[in-house]
Amino acid sequence: MFETPLPESLLSIHHDGSGRYIHNSAGLLLNGEPRLGDTITLRLRAAPEAPIEQVALRLCPDGEQQFLEMRPEPQAANPAVRWWSVQLRLGMPYTHYRFLVLAQGEAWWYNAAGLQRALPTDAANFKLLAGYQAPAWARRSVFYQIFPDRFADGDPSSNVREGEFEYRGMRSLARRWGEPPNASGWQSMLEFYGGDLNGVAERLDYLQDLGVNAIYLNPIFSAYSNHRYDVTDYENVDPHLGGNPALAGLRRALDERGMHYILDIVPNHCGFMHPWFQQALHDPQAPSAEFFTFHKHPEEYESWLGVRSLPKLNYRSEKLRNAIYAGSESVFRRWLRSPYGADGWRIDVANMLGRQGADQLGELVGSGIRAAVKGENPAAYLLGENFFDGSEQLQGDFLDATMNYSGFSKPLWWWLKGFSVSSHGMHGALAASAAWPGQAVLGSWNTFRAAIPWAMARQQFNLLGSHDTGRILSQVGEDMQMNRLAAMLLMTYPGIPCIYYGDEIGMSGSTTAQARACMEWDANKWNHELRGFYQALARLRRSAPALLDGGYQELYAEADTLAFLRDSPGQAIIVAAQRGPAAHPGLALNVRQGGIPDGVEFREQFSGRRLSTASGRLEIGSLPPGAQVWLADIAG
Amino acid sequence: MFETPLPESLLSIHHDGSGRYIHNSAGLLLNGEPRLGDTITLRLRAAPEAPIEQVALRLCPDGEQQFLEMRPEPQAANPAVRWWSVQLRLGMPYTHYRFLVLAQGEAWWYNAAGLQRALPTDAANFKLLAGYQAPAWARRSVFYQIFPDRFADGDPSSNVREGEFEYRGMRSLARRWGEPPNASGWQSMLEFYGGDLNGVAERLDYLQDLGVNAIYLNPIFSAYSNHRYDVTDYENVDPHLGGNPALAGLRRALDERGMHYILDIVPNHCGFMHPWFQQALHDPQAPSAEFFTFHKHPEEYESWLGVRSLPKLNYRSEKLRNAIYAGSESVFRRWLRSPYGADGWRIDVANMLGRQGADQLGELVGSGIRAAVKGENPAAYLLGENFFDGSEQLQGDFLDATMNYSGFSKPLWWWLKGFSVSSHGMHGALAASAAWPGQAVLGSWNTFRAAIPWAMARQQFNLLGSHDTGRILSQVGEDMQMNRLAAMLLMTYPGIPCIYYGDEIGMSGSTTAQARACMEWDANKWNHELRGFYQALARLRRSAPALLDGGYQELYAEADTLAFLRDSPGQAIIVAAQRGPAAHPGLALNVRQGGIPDGVEFREQFSGRRLSTASGRLEIGSLPPGAQVWLADIAG
Repeated sequence: MFETPLPESLLSIHHDGSGRYIHNSAGLLLNGEPRLGDTITLRLRAAPEAPIEQVALRLCPDGEQQFLEMRPEPQAANPAVRWWSVQLRLGMPYTHYRFLVLAQGEAWWYNAAGLQRALPTDAANFKLLAGYQAPAWARRSVFYQIFPDRFADGDPSSNVREGEFEYRGMRSLARRWGEPPNASGWQSMLEFYGGDLNGVAERLDYLQDLGVNAIYLNPIFSAYSNHRYDVTDYENVDPHLGGNPALAGLRRALDERGMHYILDIVPNHCGFMHPWFQQALHDPQAPSAEFFTFHKHPEEYESWLGVRSLPKLNYRSEKLRNAIYAGSESVFRRWLRSPYGADGWRIDVANMLGRQGADQLGELVGSGIRAAVKGENPAAYLLGENFFDGSEQLQGDFLDATMNYSGFSKPLWWWLKGFSVSSHGMHGALAASAAWPGQAVLGSWNTFRAAIPWAMARQQFNLLGSHDTGRILSQVGEDMQMNRLAAMLLMTYPGIPCIYYGDEIGMSGSTTAQARACMEWDANKWNHELRGFYQALARLRRSAPALLDGGYQELYAEADTLAFLRDSPGQAIIVAAQRGPAAHPGLALNVRQGGIPDGVEFREQFSGRRLSTASGRLEIGSLPPGAQVWLADIAG
Repeated sequence: MFETPLPESLLSIHHDGSGRYIHNSAGLLLNGEPRLGDTITLRLRAAPEAPIEQVALRLCPDGEQQFLEMRPEPQAANPAVRWWSVQLRLGMPYTHYRFLVLAQGEAWWYNAAGLQRALPTDAANFKLLAGYQAPAWARRSVFYQIFPDRFADGDPSSNVREGEFEYRGMRSLARRWGEPPNASGWQSMLEFYGGDLNGVAERLDYLQDLGVNAIYLNPIFSAYSNHRYDVTDYENVDPHLGGNPALAGLRRALDERGMHYILDIVPNHCGFMHPWFQQALHDPQAPSAEFFTFHKHPEEYESWLGVRSLPKLNYRSEKLRNAIYAGSESVFRRWLRSPYGADGWRIDVANMLGRQGADQLGELVGSGIRAAVKGENPAAYLLGENFFDGSEQLQGDFLDATMNYSGFSKPLWWWLKGFSVSSHGMHGALAASAAWPGQAVLGSWNTFRAAIPWAMARQQFNLLGSHDTGRILSQVGEDMQMNRLAAMLLMTYPGIPCIYYGDEIGMSGSTTAQARACMEWDANKWNHELRGFYQALARLRRSAPALLDGGYQELYAEADTLAFLRDSPGQAIIVAAQRGPAAHPGLALNVRQGGIPDGVEFREQFSGRRLSTASGRLEIGSLPPGAQVWLADIAG
């Protein structure tokens, strides 16, 4: 509540977990995490004119505070930076650290949350993992999310037919491709359009052309609904999607292109019609009865948020743990194996997994899943759904990433369309009428990044929308400038970007039902300019070292404007975004605090405009609504 | 780095875990924690004029976000407060929550760290434990720390004699009571003055007269040094302190007075001369060899910070875990039993326990110790030494409290004597020449309080110094006003105060050796005024509901000045502290933000001065160096 102001002269102090700031004797830690026992070099950067007297690294090996004095490095070629460094042997699997900076007689703590006078806890310390099994391929990827029933129909003979089956009193509906979904309520889950895995395989050229090299598939195991989160068989791909052979075929087709894919698994609950549950429902003594939690058999049982068609799996059962992840033939393991060879999993409601009131088995289940998955494939990408704070699941023991709603999407949405929150079962939303400020965007992003190791931040799964949200174009009120702005931030913010199918051609949809509409394959209906823009962004994202592996530093924030720097050895990228409605007049970014000297020429990646830094500033001038991406080569 | 400013109109928003803000249907949660399944009421307070439109409670039951709208209560008798409340059933052992406040069209998150626009992680959420076994007696206590060799010599016949034994090549030294310790280096550990447990028992009248009702005893088990952290026998009280019968006698004497005591245990390491280690040293096949970690037998073994006389215990050994805590006759258990009946433990270097590089068994050992101790006595007080961030040990799974150096003492020391940090083995210290600001004191305190459940914050072990630090009077440069200020903050800040023996009579000592000087029993040498002041403070601390169980709210901070409010149903206490060197002119505290209406008469507890609130302010006027404690009765 009472804060001491941060002097401008110290804003140039910077460190993060990226290549300019941490390396080992073999070079940069770009492709692998350090191992236990490795010696690494930690570096802190500041402007030469920052009035810094002394810098120390503050550690806590085996729980005991330790300070290591950092030494100034010889002046670098870059006259805008001064470096301090220190060597550190990684003796623990998990090392957290911060810096103590003495400047003008004052002591400042510098951690991942920033500079502060007050003594911090270790929560926002920088975090470093040793021996962590990273999915290095994922960091080189631009993902594309596919909702299988709605992407492409490769084999019409496998389509669900009208009235082919009944589920909970309702009959399946067969729709023509491109018709807007129109069933309401529960029945909307039974509208089928015929999308399948052969369709996906047939469209890989399209995806490659877009710049995508990895796919996140929504659930494909047998189920009754079109979203297939009501799984009835963990062992088989739904025949309506082409069955197991189609998945093996997709794998081969991806391999030919050097592409990856991950599957969506629902380990928190299963469908009402899963034989495990049906048997348990009819016989309290059934072997699978222990997989569920009946409070009163058969009427009362635990389910996903009280939705009775999705009975919650009970991880107190060792038999269940073996079936789902721990056993050698577990669900989590077998789909990673040939011929399906998934490159990882997206775990549905990872936030809720193993949690049941008095029994909170989330950590047990999470670490068990990690051990099984990484035992099968150390490079598997273990992504969890968590709309909220997934920090505790991102410390090296469970997930490699969450769907980064809280740490990326929500702040961006709130900035662009206003603050609004709600929860399951709540009527309406809690919304703010005033605009949500840009400072809060950077603040929120920073808070969530600071809570996890950099190794996690750089592989967080960033997204503008999904099957669970409206589409970004609709979220921003069909404003194409804001839509482009959002895409630019998606592709330039630390983490792995994922495009929701169809966003790239300008599909809109405010509700989740609308957002699950069929992919438009009539190129006449595409927004070609937008698609070209996405292509350029994906190319940039996959080729620019500063975006692939670079650091992150805040440069500017006010209500309608924000800017940040991505930096890698040799490259600097500055992203500036303006919400509007008006242009930001006379924007001059203080790039000196980002370690960028005068006389560096930046090139805006979409307009081609060129600008050189002078007097410590990049004088952008008027920044119209939208975003700009400025790139420069730069000496260390 | 970029923050949105906090409007003054919202400063009155307040909630914490104390009785005005959380209660159950049976009344207030003063003497016990809620149980799993209990329904409680959560309340938020603000000034009626705060422009609040809506308040919601934000929860995350079983990992999924939930908002519960809070309802305005009917206007209270107190015209300065407006309350919102909501009922909540505690379905999990650990519930964290924050509030969403919509005010003037803007959304604010309110958690234990304060108000903010940016989306926070859950780290600083308010935290509530259900089914937590609290040491309720401890919260009613004023502790007194005794270093046994230096407090009182009850039985000279048991004193260590000059040259009675040799340890690591040096002979024991017998000193006359009151002589200043003068051996240097290692030999300072072998100076003995003859203090013992009978001496403690004989001085209980003195302690009661002072207002103390609980004792923390430094180690008393057999050892070679005077501090006895080099334990050689966990099963027996050192004969030089009177042996086991003396401890049983002390227990009886304490019982007669309704007093409590806790013992100091060293489970991280033992003394070089402990038979376990001696046997392991001489025989790698000895049964106790697995209790230690030899890298190369016998020369290289793990020890406390590399000090070879303190070999580190190896908790990978199940046999060791059983001997120390898990077994039915374990050390942790047996001393809690009659006739010794200790009321708890202070765990030496709890921060390091079970941590050995690649193997970090801290959680395993911590939860095991808790289970053993609480299994023996649910009301035992489990206190851990942790000079750093002990938050992770204070979430209900391990400790009931840490020695609150980081969350209380260090910020206070830095404010009063300047910022300085060091670590073991470091030459000199990292120090700031500029004064450390009052804002950073409140900020640090707040950060550490926000990281733990209120149930922990209110029983944290607060101290001004210990056997491991210089004495507070010396820390503040022998300035009696600052010494009194420190004592006032000790006795009024949330947590349990502990007086280091002799501080109350004006003993000084800059080094730890000097701080362990003999207690002065010649009353002619006492500072009687200071002692009377401590008596008054202890009386106040033990009788004022606002200090025993009240909430905490920051009221004011600038470089040299700070003020806070403690509030309980019916009582408000305002503490204002001025570092000096000059008086703070014209101090007018905004008490309206603390929910205090106009016309309330406050009485300063040491000067007797009376003041009434007016225009939302308590007009203290000139605040001279030192502290003031203002108390008033107040309607809900």
